[in-house]
Amino acid sequence: MPTNHSADAAGGESAGLASSLNALIKDRVPAMYALGIRIVELREGFVAGTAPLAGNLNHQDSMYAGTLFGLGEALGAGIVVASFDLSRFTATVKDVQIRYRRPATTDVRAHASLDAGEVARIKQEAAIAGKAEFVLDAELTDLAGVVVATTHGTYQVRRI
Amino acid sequence: MPTNHSADAAGGESAGLASSLNALIKDRVPAMYALGIRIVELREGFVAGTAPLAGNLNHQDSMYAGTLFGLGEALGAGIVVASFDLSRFTATVKDVQIRYRRPATTDVRAHASLDAGEVARIKQEAAIAGKAEFVLDAELTDLAGVVVATTHGTYQVRRI
Repeated sequence: MPTNHSADAAGGESAGLASSLNALIKDRVPAMYALGIRIVELREGFVAGTAPLAGNLNHQDSMYAGTLFGLGEALGAGIVVASFDLSRFTATVKDVQIRYRRPATTDVRAHASLDAGEVARIKQEAAIAGKAEFVLDAELTDLAGVVVATTHGTYQVRRI
Repeated sequence: MPTNHSADAAGGESAGLASSLNALIKDRVPAMYALGIRIVELREGFVAGTAPLAGNLNHQDSMYAGTLFGLGEALGAGIVVASFDLSRFTATVKDVQIRYRRPATTDVRAHASLDAGEVARIKQEAAIAGKAEFVLDAELTDLAGVVVATTHGTYQVRRI
């Protein structure tokens, strides 16, 4: 009888990684945590996060531009956490462009991914040179699935 | 005997405008206010703001990327507040690019300006078409005057 153990294990690992990163954010980047930004899915090459509308309203009753930015920007850290030992590597953001498409009037979800070849390239380069850059494009959507913003960021992972 | 009334008046007006905008941010964009972002100088065509390191540390003991972004982004609102009646016009950010140059390990100050001709163009276009776009470049510096980040944003002012 076929079982689903490996899928269960992968789901559990993803939730565990996301929880670990949220705990790290709470402890080490409390201003980001206070914005309500949370990582909700995290595995090698894929990361998703959320930010709540509550507490993040702006003067037009939609989500504050800085919170949307913070959500998109945070995904780069997720990509690094999923593939690197944080006792040996750290992540830095070099630049980010955010385009606001429509006002976000619900909670927002963001996701970004890198294909397996790109993850392998980053790991290999970081192992050999001690550092590697990567570009991450994220899409931010409201609860109806409408794209409210996109981000395009350059990150660096480097040996501590 | 020469007096300095007009300089005093201009300084007082700038401080008054900045205070008014900070009060508006506290009331209408509390997440931005909670990051410690404050407008400290504001007059037509010129805006400066600050963000404290305290409360904004990241995992590398420098200022959180999202706070630096929020500080640069906020200056666009300042430019609009200094030149428009907020009971008739509102401001929206369309896109922002931030480049992180060096870690910010002190409080940070940001400033941006538009020349008189550009302010006049925006006012005229908004008066005629009901909306106008403008681009604002901001420089963020630490207490030693070192540039820690730059932002390049596109904003829209439009009739309510």
